[in-house]
Amino acid sequence: MSDEAGDLFRFRESPSTPPPEFDAAFRRHFLELLVWRRDVRRFRPEPVADELVRELIAMARFAPSVGLSEPWRFVRVDAPARRKAVRENFVACNAEALSSYSGDRAEQYAHLKLEGLDTAPVHLAVFVDPDPEQGHGLGRRTMPETVAYSAAMAIYTLWLAARTHRVGVGWVSILNPKDVVTALDVPAGWRFIAYLCVGYPEEESPSPALSRAGWEQRSDPSQFYLER
Amino acid sequence: MSDEAGDLFRFRESPSTPPPEFDAAFRRHFLELLVWRRDVRRFRPEPVADELVRELIAMARFAPSVGLSEPWRFVRVDAPARRKAVRENFVACNAEALSSYSGDRAEQYAHLKLEGLDTAPVHLAVFVDPDPEQGHGLGRRTMPETVAYSAAMAIYTLWLAARTHRVGVGWVSILNPKDVVTALDVPAGWRFIAYLCVGYPEEESPSPALSRAGWEQRSDPSQFYLER
Repeated sequence: MSDEAGDLFRFRESPSTPPPEFDAAFRRHFLELLVWRRDVRRFRPEPVADELVRELIAMARFAPSVGLSEPWRFVRVDAPARRKAVRENFVACNAEALSSYSGDRAEQYAHLKLEGLDTAPVHLAVFVDPDPEQGHGLGRRTMPETVAYSAAMAIYTLWLAARTHRVGVGWVSILNPKDVVTALDVPAGWRFIAYLCVGYPEEESPSPALSRAGWEQRSDPSQFYLER
Repeated sequence: MSDEAGDLFRFRESPSTPPPEFDAAFRRHFLELLVWRRDVRRFRPEPVADELVRELIAMARFAPSVGLSEPWRFVRVDAPARRKAVRENFVACNAEALSSYSGDRAEQYAHLKLEGLDTAPVHLAVFVDPDPEQGHGLGRRTMPETVAYSAAMAIYTLWLAARTHRVGVGWVSILNPKDVVTALDVPAGWRFIAYLCVGYPEEESPSPALSRAGWEQRSDPSQFYLER
Protein backbone atom coordinates (compact mmCIF):
# COMPACT_ATOMS: atom_id res chain seq x y z
CA MET A 1 0.00 0.00 0.00
CA SER A 2 1.22 3.52 -0.74
CA ASP A 3 1.46 6.35 1.78
CA GLU A 4 -1.99 7.52 0.78
CA ALA A 5 -3.46 4.15 1.66
CA GLY A 6 -1.54 4.29 4.94
CA ASP A 7 -3.07 7.66 5.70
CA LEU A 8 -6.43 6.20 4.84
CA PHE A 9 -6.15 3.50 7.44
CA ARG A 10 -5.05 6.02 10.04
CA PHE A 11 -8.30 7.97 9.39
CA ARG A 12 -10.21 4.83 10.19
CA GLU A 13 -8.33 4.06 13.35
CA SER A 14 -8.73 7.55 14.78
CA PRO A 15 -12.41 8.21 15.24
CA SER A 16 -11.35 11.20 17.32
CA THR A 17 -10.05 12.90 14.15
CA PRO A 18 -12.25 15.92 13.44
CA PRO A 19 -14.63 15.43 10.50
CA PRO A 20 -13.22 16.71 7.21
CA GLU A 21 -14.49 19.97 5.75
CA PHE A 22 -15.43 20.00 2.07
CA ASP A 23 -15.35 23.47 0.56
CA ALA A 24 -16.66 24.85 -2.72
CA ALA A 25 -13.30 24.22 -4.42
CA PHE A 26 -13.40 20.55 -3.44
CA ARG A 27 -16.99 20.21 -4.56
CA ARG A 28 -16.16 21.72 -7.90
CA HIS A 29 -13.25 19.35 -8.35
CA PHE A 30 -15.41 16.41 -7.27
CA LEU A 31 -17.95 17.35 -9.94
CA GLU A 32 -15.16 17.35 -12.49
CA LEU A 33 -14.22 13.86 -11.35
CA LEU A 34 -17.79 12.66 -11.91
CA VAL A 35 -18.07 14.43 -15.24
CA TRP A 36 -14.72 13.24 -16.62
CA ARG A 37 -15.03 9.63 -15.48
CA ARG A 38 -15.50 7.56 -18.60
CA ASP A 39 -16.24 4.00 -19.58
CA VAL A 40 -12.92 3.47 -21.30
CA ARG A 41 -12.48 1.14 -24.27
CA ARG A 42 -9.19 2.39 -25.74
CA PHE A 43 -6.11 1.99 -23.57
CA ARG A 44 -2.47 2.94 -23.91
CA PRO A 45 -0.07 0.01 -23.46
CA GLU A 46 1.72 1.25 -20.29
CA PRO A 47 1.26 -1.00 -17.29
CA VAL A 48 -0.52 0.12 -14.13
CA ALA A 49 1.64 -0.40 -11.04
CA ASP A 50 0.58 -3.42 -8.99
CA GLU A 51 0.69 -1.31 -5.84
CA LEU A 52 -1.83 1.09 -7.34
CA VAL A 53 -4.16 -1.75 -8.36
CA ARG A 54 -4.03 -3.09 -4.80
CA GLU A 55 -4.68 0.38 -3.42
CA LEU A 56 -7.74 0.82 -5.66
CA ILE A 57 -9.16 -2.50 -4.49
CA ALA A 58 -8.50 -1.55 -0.87
CA MET A 59 -10.35 1.72 -1.43
CA ALA A 60 -13.34 -0.07 -2.96
CA ARG A 61 -14.16 -1.48 0.48
CA PHE A 62 -15.22 1.97 1.66
CA ALA A 63 -18.33 1.60 -0.46
CA PRO A 64 -21.59 1.06 1.41
CA SER A 65 -22.53 -2.59 1.85
CA VAL A 66 -25.78 -4.04 3.12
CA GLY A 67 -25.39 -4.99 6.77
CA LEU A 68 -21.64 -4.28 6.50
CA SER A 69 -21.45 -7.60 4.65
CA GLU A 70 -18.73 -6.50 2.18
CA PRO A 71 -20.04 -9.11 -0.29
CA TRP A 72 -17.81 -7.99 -3.20
CA ARG A 73 -15.10 -10.30 -4.54
CA PHE A 74 -12.34 -9.03 -6.84
CA VAL A 75 -10.46 -11.38 -9.13
CA ARG A 76 -7.39 -10.18 -10.98
CA VAL A 77 -7.14 -12.08 -14.25
CA ASP A 78 -3.66 -12.45 -15.76
CA ALA A 79 -3.55 -15.99 -17.19
CA PRO A 80 -3.61 -15.68 -21.00
CA ALA A 81 -5.88 -18.71 -21.41
CA ARG A 82 -8.46 -17.25 -19.04
CA ARG A 83 -8.33 -13.84 -20.72
CA LYS A 84 -8.78 -15.59 -24.06
CA ALA A 85 -11.85 -17.46 -22.80
CA VAL A 86 -13.40 -14.20 -21.61
CA ARG A 87 -12.61 -12.51 -24.91
CA GLU A 88 -14.17 -15.36 -26.90
CA ASN A 89 -17.24 -15.15 -24.72
CA PHE A 90 -17.51 -11.43 -25.45
CA VAL A 91 -17.17 -12.03 -29.20
CA ALA A 92 -19.98 -14.62 -29.16
CA CYS A 93 -22.30 -12.51 -26.99
CA ASN A 94 -21.61 -9.41 -29.03
CA ALA A 95 -22.40 -11.21 -32.29
CA GLU A 96 -25.73 -12.28 -30.79
CA ALA A 97 -26.40 -8.73 -29.64
CA LEU A 98 -25.65 -7.40 -33.13
CA SER A 99 -28.12 -9.86 -34.63
CA SER A 100 -30.89 -8.34 -32.48
CA TYR A 101 -30.61 -5.00 -34.33
CA SER A 102 -31.51 -4.24 -37.91
CA GLY A 103 -31.01 -1.52 -40.50
CA ASP A 104 -29.10 1.63 -39.55
CA ARG A 105 -29.06 0.64 -35.89
CA ALA A 106 -27.28 -2.64 -36.71
CA GLU A 107 -24.81 -0.80 -38.91
CA GLN A 108 -24.12 1.66 -36.13
CA TYR A 109 -23.80 -1.10 -33.49
CA ALA A 110 -21.29 -2.97 -35.63
CA HIS A 111 -19.00 0.06 -35.60
CA LEU A 112 -19.08 0.67 -31.86
CA LYS A 113 -16.00 -0.11 -29.80
CA LEU A 114 -17.49 -1.73 -26.70
CA GLU A 115 -14.49 -3.13 -24.83
CA GLY A 116 -10.74 -2.82 -24.45
CA LEU A 117 -10.00 -6.45 -23.62
CA ASP A 118 -7.02 -6.71 -26.00
CA THR A 119 -5.18 -3.63 -24.79
CA ALA A 120 -6.11 -3.09 -21.13
CA PRO A 121 -3.10 -4.12 -19.04
CA VAL A 122 -5.21 -5.04 -16.01
CA HIS A 123 -8.33 -7.21 -16.03
CA LEU A 124 -10.48 -7.41 -12.90
CA ALA A 125 -13.55 -9.60 -12.65
CA VAL A 126 -16.01 -8.72 -9.90
CA PHE A 127 -18.33 -11.21 -8.25
CA VAL A 128 -20.61 -11.19 -5.27
CA ASP A 129 -21.15 -13.75 -2.56
CA PRO A 130 -24.97 -13.85 -2.63
CA ASP A 131 -25.28 -15.10 0.95
CA PRO A 132 -22.26 -13.95 2.94
CA GLU A 133 -21.88 -14.87 6.59
CA GLN A 134 -20.47 -11.40 7.27
CA GLY A 135 -23.28 -9.01 8.20
CA HIS A 136 -25.47 -11.80 9.62
CA GLY A 137 -28.08 -11.24 6.92
CA LEU A 138 -28.98 -7.76 8.15
CA GLY A 139 -30.89 -5.60 5.69
CA ARG A 140 -31.30 -8.14 2.91
CA ARG A 141 -34.14 -10.39 4.01
CA THR A 142 -36.72 -8.72 1.77
CA MET A 143 -34.18 -7.48 -0.78
CA PRO A 144 -31.42 -10.07 -1.32
CA GLU A 145 -30.37 -8.17 -4.44
CA THR A 146 -28.76 -5.53 -2.20
CA VAL A 147 -25.57 -7.59 -2.08
CA ALA A 148 -25.18 -7.04 -5.83
CA TYR A 149 -25.90 -3.32 -5.39
CA SER A 150 -23.13 -3.20 -2.78
CA ALA A 151 -20.72 -4.71 -5.31
CA ALA A 152 -21.80 -2.18 -7.95
CA MET A 153 -20.98 0.64 -5.53
CA ALA A 154 -17.60 -0.91 -4.73
CA ILE A 155 -16.85 -1.00 -8.45
CA TYR A 156 -17.82 2.65 -8.79
CA THR A 157 -15.59 3.56 -5.84
CA LEU A 158 -12.65 1.88 -7.56
CA TRP A 159 -13.60 3.57 -10.83
CA LEU A 160 -13.62 7.08 -9.37
CA ALA A 161 -10.46 6.45 -7.36
CA ALA A 162 -8.74 5.18 -10.52
CA ARG A 163 -9.72 8.33 -12.38
CA THR A 164 -8.02 10.49 -9.72
CA HIS A 165 -4.81 8.72 -10.83
CA ARG A 166 -5.67 9.23 -14.53
CA VAL A 167 -6.39 5.51 -14.79
CA GLY A 168 -9.44 4.52 -16.81
CA VAL A 169 -11.92 1.71 -16.25
CA GLY A 170 -14.23 0.04 -18.76
CA TRP A 171 -17.11 -2.16 -17.57
CA VAL A 172 -17.79 -5.08 -19.91
CA SER A 173 -21.27 -6.57 -19.48
CA ILE A 174 -21.63 -8.26 -22.87
CA LEU A 175 -20.70 -11.63 -21.40
CA ASN A 176 -22.54 -14.73 -20.26
CA PRO A 177 -22.29 -14.71 -16.45
CA LYS A 178 -22.21 -18.50 -16.10
CA ASP A 179 -19.46 -18.84 -18.68
CA VAL A 180 -17.33 -16.27 -16.84
CA VAL A 181 -17.73 -18.17 -13.56
CA THR A 182 -16.49 -21.30 -15.36
CA ALA A 183 -13.67 -19.58 -17.23
CA LEU A 184 -12.27 -18.06 -14.03
CA ASP A 185 -12.85 -21.06 -11.77
CA VAL A 186 -14.11 -19.05 -8.83
CA PRO A 187 -15.84 -20.57 -5.77
CA ALA A 188 -19.19 -22.18 -6.48
CA GLY A 189 -22.08 -19.87 -5.73
CA TRP A 190 -20.35 -16.59 -6.54
CA ARG A 191 -22.41 -14.45 -8.87
CA PHE A 192 -20.73 -12.52 -11.68
CA ILE A 193 -21.24 -8.76 -11.57
CA ALA A 194 -18.75 -7.12 -13.95
CA TYR A 195 -15.57 -7.55 -15.95
CA LEU A 196 -13.39 -4.46 -15.70
CA CYS A 197 -10.67 -3.38 -18.11
CA VAL A 198 -8.21 -1.09 -16.33
CA GLY A 199 -5.41 1.01 -17.80
CA TYR A 200 -4.33 4.46 -18.95
CA PRO A 201 -6.85 5.79 -21.48
CA GLU A 202 -5.89 6.93 -24.97
CA GLU A 203 -8.07 10.00 -24.62
CA GLU A 204 -10.07 11.93 -22.03
CA SER A 205 -13.47 13.49 -22.52
CA PRO A 206 -16.35 14.91 -20.51
CA SER A 207 -18.84 13.14 -22.82
CA PRO A 208 -19.75 9.44 -22.88
CA ALA A 209 -18.33 7.46 -25.81
CA LEU A 210 -21.85 6.31 -26.78
CA SER A 211 -22.92 9.93 -26.94
CA ARG A 212 -19.94 10.92 -29.10
CA ALA A 213 -20.66 7.95 -31.39
CA GLY A 214 -24.27 9.08 -31.83
CA TRP A 215 -25.78 5.95 -30.25
CA GLU A 216 -27.63 7.70 -27.42
CA GLN A 217 -27.76 11.04 -25.60
CA ARG A 218 -28.34 11.84 -21.95
CA SER A 219 -31.85 12.98 -21.02
CA ASP A 220 -32.76 16.00 -19.01
CA PRO A 221 -32.76 15.06 -15.28
CA SER A 222 -36.41 16.14 -14.99
CA GLN A 223 -37.23 13.05 -17.09
CA PHE A 224 -36.51 10.76 -14.17
CA TYR A 225 -37.96 12.71 -11.28
CA LEU A 226 -41.43 12.47 -9.71
CA GLU A 227 -43.06 13.89 -6.58
CA ARG A 228 -45.47 11.96 -4.41
CA MET B 1 -29.82 24.78 -9.89
CA SER B 2 -27.07 26.52 -7.99
CA ASP B 3 -23.98 28.08 -9.53
CA GLU B 4 -22.08 24.86 -9.00
CA ALA B 5 -24.66 22.92 -10.99
CA GLY B 6 -24.48 25.63 -13.65
CA ASP B 7 -20.72 25.19 -13.82
CA LEU B 8 -21.27 21.47 -14.08
CA PHE B 9 -23.37 21.77 -17.18
CA ARG B 10 -20.84 24.08 -18.75
CA PHE B 11 -18.16 21.37 -18.32
CA ARG B 12 -20.38 19.05 -20.32
CA GLU B 13 -21.02 21.50 -23.07
CA SER B 14 -17.35 22.31 -23.57
CA PRO B 15 -15.54 19.14 -24.57
CA SER B 16 -12.62 21.36 -25.52
CA THR B 17 -12.06 22.14 -21.83
CA PRO B 18 -8.73 20.63 -20.78
CA PRO B 19 -9.08 17.50 -18.61
CA PRO B 20 -8.96 18.23 -14.89
CA GLU B 21 -5.83 17.41 -12.90
CA PHE B 22 -6.25 15.57 -9.62
CA ASP B 23 -3.33 16.04 -7.27
CA ALA B 24 -2.34 14.27 -4.05
CA ALA B 25 -4.23 16.81 -1.94
CA PHE B 26 -7.43 16.14 -3.86
CA ARG B 27 -6.94 12.38 -3.63
CA ARG B 28 -6.45 12.62 0.10
CA HIS B 29 -9.60 14.68 0.46
CA PHE B 30 -11.50 12.26 -1.76
CA LEU B 31 -10.43 9.39 0.51
CA GLU B 32 -11.75 11.34 3.47
CA LEU B 33 -15.04 11.71 1.65
CA LEU B 34 -15.26 7.94 1.15
CA VAL B 35 -14.19 7.20 4.71
CA TRP B 36 -16.56 9.70 6.35
CA ARG B 37 -19.59 8.86 4.25
CA ARG B 38 -22.03 7.11 6.55
CA ASP B 39 -25.35 5.33 6.37
CA VAL B 40 -27.16 7.85 8.54
CA ARG B 41 -30.07 6.94 10.80
CA ARG B 42 -30.15 9.91 13.18
CA PHE B 43 -30.98 13.28 11.66
CA ARG B 44 -31.21 16.81 12.96
CA PRO B 45 -34.57 18.48 12.22
CA GLU B 46 -33.27 21.29 9.95
CA PRO B 47 -34.65 21.13 6.42
CA VAL B 48 -32.45 20.57 3.37
CA ALA B 49 -32.93 23.29 0.76
CA ASP B 50 -35.05 22.15 -2.19
CA GLU B 51 -32.45 23.58 -4.55
CA LEU B 52 -29.78 21.37 -3.02
CA VAL B 53 -31.98 18.27 -3.30
CA ARG B 54 -32.54 19.02 -6.99
CA GLU B 55 -28.81 19.59 -7.48
CA LEU B 56 -27.99 16.24 -5.87
CA ILE B 57 -30.45 14.45 -8.15
CA ALA B 58 -29.02 16.25 -11.16
CA MET B 59 -25.53 15.11 -10.14
CA ALA B 60 -26.65 11.50 -9.78
CA ARG B 61 -27.05 11.32 -13.55
CA PHE B 62 -23.27 11.44 -13.98
CA ALA B 63 -23.13 7.87 -12.70
CA PRO B 64 -22.32 5.21 -15.27
CA SER B 65 -25.37 3.60 -16.86
CA VAL B 66 -25.53 0.56 -19.09
CA GLY B 67 -25.79 1.66 -22.72
CA LEU B 68 -26.26 5.26 -21.50
CA SER B 69 -29.81 4.18 -20.61
CA GLU B 70 -30.07 6.32 -17.44
CA PRO B 71 -32.63 3.84 -16.06
CA TRP B 72 -32.81 5.43 -12.58
CA ARG B 73 -36.02 7.07 -11.39
CA PHE B 74 -36.10 9.33 -8.33
CA VAL B 75 -39.31 9.94 -6.40
CA ARG B 76 -39.44 12.60 -3.72
CA VAL B 77 -41.96 11.51 -1.08
CA ASP B 78 -43.63 14.29 0.93
CA ALA B 79 -47.26 13.19 1.37
CA PRO B 80 -47.71 12.18 5.04
CA ALA B 81 -49.97 9.23 4.16
CA ARG B 82 -47.37 7.80 1.79
CA ARG B 83 -44.57 8.27 4.30
CA LYS B 84 -46.75 6.56 6.89
CA ALA B 85 -47.36 3.59 4.59
CA VAL B 86 -43.62 3.20 4.02
CA ARG B 87 -42.92 3.47 7.74
CA GLU B 88 -45.55 0.80 8.54
CA ASN B 89 -44.01 -1.44 5.93
CA PHE B 90 -40.61 -1.01 7.54
CA VAL B 91 -42.02 -1.84 10.99
CA ALA B 92 -43.61 -5.06 9.69
CA CYS B 93 -40.53 -6.16 7.73
CA ASN B 94 -38.24 -5.34 10.63
CA ALA B 95 -40.36 -7.37 13.05
CA GLU B 96 -40.09 -10.32 10.67
CA ALA B 97 -36.33 -9.83 10.41
CA LEU B 98 -36.02 -9.75 14.20
CA SER B 99 -37.91 -13.03 14.46
CA SER B 100 -35.25 -14.69 12.28
CA TYR B 101 -32.58 -14.13 14.97
CA SER B 102 -32.35 -15.74 18.37
CA GLY B 103 -30.47 -15.34 21.64
CA ASP B 104 -27.90 -12.55 21.96
CA ARG B 105 -28.07 -11.78 18.26
CA ALA B 106 -31.83 -11.11 18.51
CA GLU B 107 -31.28 -8.96 21.59
CA GLN B 108 -28.60 -6.99 19.74
CA TYR B 109 -30.75 -6.64 16.60
CA ALA B 110 -33.67 -5.31 18.61
CA HIS B 111 -31.50 -2.43 19.86
CA LEU B 112 -30.11 -1.37 16.47
CA LYS B 113 -31.34 1.88 14.96
CA LEU B 114 -31.79 0.93 11.29
CA GLU B 115 -33.60 3.90 9.76
CA GLY B 116 -34.31 7.59 10.24
CA LEU B 117 -37.77 7.65 8.67
CA ASP B 118 -39.34 9.74 11.44
CA THR B 119 -36.76 12.51 11.49
CA ALA B 120 -35.24 12.74 7.99
CA PRO B 121 -36.65 15.87 6.36
CA VAL B 122 -36.29 14.49 2.83
CA HIS B 123 -37.42 11.06 1.64
CA LEU B 124 -36.34 9.84 -1.79
CA ALA B 125 -37.44 6.52 -3.23
CA VAL B 126 -35.37 5.17 -6.08
CA PHE B 127 -36.67 2.85 -8.77
CA VAL B 128 -35.41 1.52 -12.04
CA ASP B 129 -37.11 1.13 -15.38
CA PRO B 130 -36.10 -2.49 -16.11
CA ASP B 131 -36.47 -2.12 -19.87
CA PRO B 132 -35.86 1.49 -20.84
CA GLU B 133 -36.09 2.60 -24.43
CA GLN B 134 -33.11 4.91 -23.89
CA GLY B 135 -29.87 3.07 -24.70
CA HIS B 136 -31.57 0.77 -27.22
CA GLY B 137 -30.84 -2.25 -25.06
CA LEU B 138 -27.07 -1.97 -25.48
CA GLY B 139 -24.99 -3.91 -22.97
CA ARG B 140 -27.81 -5.63 -21.11
CA ARG B 141 -28.87 -8.50 -23.32
CA THR B 142 -27.02 -11.12 -21.27
CA MET B 143 -27.11 -9.13 -18.02
CA PRO B 144 -30.45 -7.31 -17.64
CA GLU B 145 -29.60 -6.71 -13.98
CA THR B 146 -27.13 -4.00 -15.07
CA VAL B 147 -29.98 -1.45 -15.09
CA ALA B 148 -30.32 -1.96 -11.33
CA TYR B 149 -26.54 -1.65 -10.91
CA SER B 150 -26.70 1.67 -12.77
CA ALA B 151 -29.33 2.90 -10.30
CA ALA B 152 -27.18 1.78 -7.35
CA MET B 153 -24.29 3.83 -8.72
CA ALA B 154 -26.56 6.86 -9.20
CA ILE B 155 -27.61 6.55 -5.56
CA TYR B 156 -23.98 6.40 -4.47
CA THR B 157 -23.19 9.48 -6.56
CA LEU B 158 -25.96 11.39 -4.80
CA TRP B 159 -24.77 10.02 -1.44
CA LEU B 160 -21.18 11.20 -1.89
CA ALA B 161 -22.27 14.55 -3.32
CA ALA B 162 -24.60 15.02 -0.34
CA ARG B 163 -21.74 14.35 2.06
CA THR B 164 -19.68 17.14 0.47
CA HIS B 165 -22.49 19.43 1.68
CA ARG B 166 -22.51 17.77 5.15
CA VAL B 167 -25.84 16.17 4.25
CA GLY B 168 -26.27 12.54 5.26
CA VAL B 169 -28.07 9.71 3.49
CA GLY B 170 -29.47 6.51 4.96
CA TRP B 171 -30.45 3.62 2.67
CA VAL B 172 -33.47 1.68 3.96
CA SER B 173 -33.76 -1.82 2.44
CA ILE B 174 -35.92 -3.44 5.12
CA LEU B 175 -39.05 -2.97 3.02
CA ASN B 176 -41.19 -5.11 0.77
CA PRO B 177 -40.47 -3.86 -2.78
CA LYS B 178 -43.97 -4.57 -4.11
CA ASP B 179 -45.60 -2.76 -1.21
CA VAL B 180 -43.45 0.32 -1.83
CA VAL B 181 -44.44 0.36 -5.50
CA THR B 182 -48.09 0.32 -4.40
CA ALA B 183 -47.68 2.86 -1.60
CA LEU B 184 -46.01 5.37 -3.91
CA ASP B 185 -48.19 4.74 -6.97
CA VAL B 186 -45.35 4.80 -9.46
CA PRO B 187 -45.66 3.67 -13.08
CA ALA B 188 -46.35 -0.04 -13.53
CA GLY B 189 -43.21 -2.00 -14.20
CA TRP B 190 -40.81 0.16 -12.22
CA ARG B 191 -38.68 -1.89 -9.86
CA PHE B 192 -37.93 -0.61 -6.36
CA ILE B 193 -34.22 -0.19 -5.56
CA ALA B 194 -33.89 1.90 -2.39
CA TYR B 195 -35.63 4.23 0.01
CA LEU B 196 -33.32 7.06 1.05
CA CYS B 197 -33.58 9.21 4.16
CA VAL B 198 -31.79 12.52 3.57
CA GLY B 199 -30.94 15.24 6.09
CA TYR B 200 -28.26 16.73 8.31
CA PRO B 201 -26.80 14.03 10.54
CA GLU B 202 -26.72 14.25 14.33
CA GLU B 203 -23.13 13.03 14.38
CA GLU B 204 -20.24 12.29 12.04
CA SER B 205 -17.88 9.35 12.22
CA PRO B 206 -15.30 7.52 10.13
CA SER B 207 -16.70 4.17 11.33
CA PRO B 208 -19.92 2.44 10.20
CA ALA B 209 -22.77 2.52 12.73
CA LEU B 210 -23.02 -1.29 12.63
CA SER B 211 -19.34 -1.50 13.53
CA ARG B 212 -19.72 0.96 16.43
CA ALA B 213 -22.75 -1.01 17.65
CA GLY B 214 -20.74 -4.25 17.64
CA TRP B 215 -22.91 -5.96 15.01
CA GLU B 216 -20.17 -6.54 12.45
CA GLN B 217 -16.64 -5.42 11.59
CA ARG B 218 -14.98 -4.81 8.25
CA SER B 219 -12.72 -7.58 6.96
CA ASP B 220 -9.20 -7.19 5.68
CA PRO B 221 -9.36 -6.42 1.93
CA SER B 222 -7.23 -9.50 1.19
CA GLN B 223 -10.29 -11.55 2.20
CA PHE B 224 -12.08 -10.65 -1.00
CA TYR B 225 -9.24 -10.77 -3.52
CA LEU B 226 -8.14 -13.66 -5.76
CA GLU B 227 -5.72 -14.01 -8.67
CA ARG B 228 -6.37 -16.13 -11.72
